[in-house]
Amino acid sequence: MSEVQLILVLWFVGVLTEAITGALAAGRNRMDLFGVVMVACITAIGGGTVRDILLGGYPLIWVAHPHYLLAIALAALMTVAFSPLMRYLTRLFLTLDALGLTVFSIIGVQKALSLGHPPLIAIASGLITGVFGGILRDLFCQRVPLVFRKELYAMVSLVTAALYMGLTMAEASEWLKLAICLPLGFGLRLLAIRYRWSIPTFDYQEQGVH
Amino acid sequence: MSEVQLILVLWFVGVLTEAITGALAAGRNRMDLFGVVMVACITAIGGGTVRDILLGGYPLIWVAHPHYLLAIALAALMTVAFSPLMRYLTRLFLTLDALGLTVFSIIGVQKALSLGHPPLIAIASGLITGVFGGILRDLFCQRVPLVFRKELYAMVSLVTAALYMGLTMAEASEWLKLAICLPLGFGLRLLAIRYRWSIPTFDYQEQGVH
Amino acid sequence: MSEVQLILVLWFVGVLTEAITGALAAGRNRMDLFGVVMVACITAIGGGTVRDILLGGYPLIWVAHPHYLLAIALAALMTVAFSPLMRYLTRLFLTLDALGLTVFSIIGVQKALSLGHPPLIAIASGLITGVFGGILRDLFCQRVPLVFRKELYAMVSLVTAALYMGLTMAEASEWLKLAICLPLGFGLRLLAIRYRWSIPTFDYQEQGVH
Repeated sequence: MSEVQLILVLWFVGVLTEAITGALAAGRNRMDLFGVVMVACITAIGGGTVRDILLGGYPLIWVAHPHYLLAIALAALMTVAFSPLMRYLTRLFLTLDALGLTVFSIIGVQKALSLGHPPLIAIASGLITGVFGGILRDLFCQRVPLVFRKELYAMVSLVTAALYMGLTMAEASEWLKLAICLPLGFGLRLLAIRYRWSIPTFDYQEQGVH
Repeated sequence: MSEVQLILVLWFVGVLTEAITGALAAGRNRMDLFGVVMVACITAIGGGTVRDILLGGYPLIWVAHPHYLLAIALAALMTVAFSPLMRYLTRLFLTLDALGLTVFSIIGVQKALSLGHPPLIAIASGLITGVFGGILRDLFCQRVPLVFRKELYAMVSLVTAALYMGLTMAEASEWLKLAICLPLGFGLRLLAIRYRWSIPTFDYQEQGVH
Repeated sequence: MSEVQLILVLWFVGVLTEAITGALAAGRNRMDLFGVVMVACITAIGGGTVRDILLGGYPLIWVAHPHYLLAIALAALMTVAFSPLMRYLTRLFLTLDALGLTVFSIIGVQKALSLGHPPLIAIASGLITGVFGGILRDLFCQRVPLVFRKELYAMVSLVTAALYMGLTMAEASEWLKLAICLPLGFGLRLLAIRYRWSIPTFDYQEQGVH
């Protein structure tokens, strides 16, 4: 398996995982099956879509490969069918989600670089790819995005993207970059969940300007 | 009247109807007249705008034809002026909205095909054109999108778009396609309202992952 | 200093001011530092980003000049560090925000014209640039956009953009246009705050269609 194939497989696992988290969030809002599929799509491919709209990276991935939409819809409907089992799979999902977050961040960097953007934009692209699906999911489900409050979620994406970018500038081989960034992002996220690491919160309750 | 003109007239009726539903939703949030016009614009042309951004279909329709914005603003302000009458027109609006939904879905398919996209994307394009104006309206008005919960709303759009796509692949004439899809989408939506048809809801109240 | 440099300096002041209002809004939602930076970015450059996506004006400004992102992040973190002082600076922020609103509106008109769009789209572009950062901020912070309800906020943007467009059509010099539009927009907004001017509100509490 080449490193491109590895990333593609991990990306697809991440997409399906995000689809499931989207479907569950829709279920918490008592949406109908259409809403479930829609929120699953937005969660699974929203990050890459926002990234490509911002960077002008047309055609969008799911427009070029529309069968991904069917896979996401299927994952969403299977989530509904097997929802009573979901409570036993929380740990599995958090693990797959950590993997997806890491892979999405790496892919975001790769995509921006392939479009000729500079390092800082590549890192921002990794971050956007990693976290924006979840941000859109929460927006459609009427809650302040968890990403803005949760254990190191966005920070893991940022660290992974920055490290991958740094290794790219150091001209590391693709395998080396993956061998370093995948376990690091994945491990950092799992440790953050396990020990409830978080970054400081800004609590400002003054009224006034805006 | 050619079939292109028919679709254009129906589209414009749909745009003005959506503008009115947007203005009323803004009124329920006690927005000022500017907010009313803004939400009316987002509701009326949001679906086509999201579609064209996703598919890269530039220039956007209202950018190429800015006088549509004035028509929408006028419809929004007339809604405010005649708001005491609106309660008597509920049935009329639901009817016009059903027509608009059907026409928007058909136009979405046509647009994607004209841009060279495959059938599955054309159907998704019809769906996005049909429902995203309402989704954006509800997002700006702080409620979980009705589209994700209401009687067959999105399903009507999906069925209409899929049928229109199927007839296109069967090389039916444009008149035949409209003669089948318009009454079917329109009738299905009216029946769904009349008999409160809906698709199953996913109710998932477990806490846990995300 | 040329008029281009003047506008650039004022634009940058506006960007930093909006970054601060975004950071404070994030603090009211008790977001973590990442959320603070993210909402600051969205508020500061969201208006121009939405405009350029709608008009197809690629590359986006912050993609072409990524160091602006660092300046915004720094402004956001400084806001957190000095948040106890913010309550004493309310008046200063409202003043800078009024200036930013005016400048953003002018820049939006200029950008649309430079892309070859007609006057009506140029005015819409000024309005979008002026108000959409604040709209996105409120969307991410789960409140009905203040812009849709606040003292003449959007109206100031609209008046400034329309006036600038009119003077452009009358072939006024760039300095003359700025000498008229900047004080007018700025003054109008300050007067609106001082005397609590507002435009009529639409209050519609009937249930029914949508």
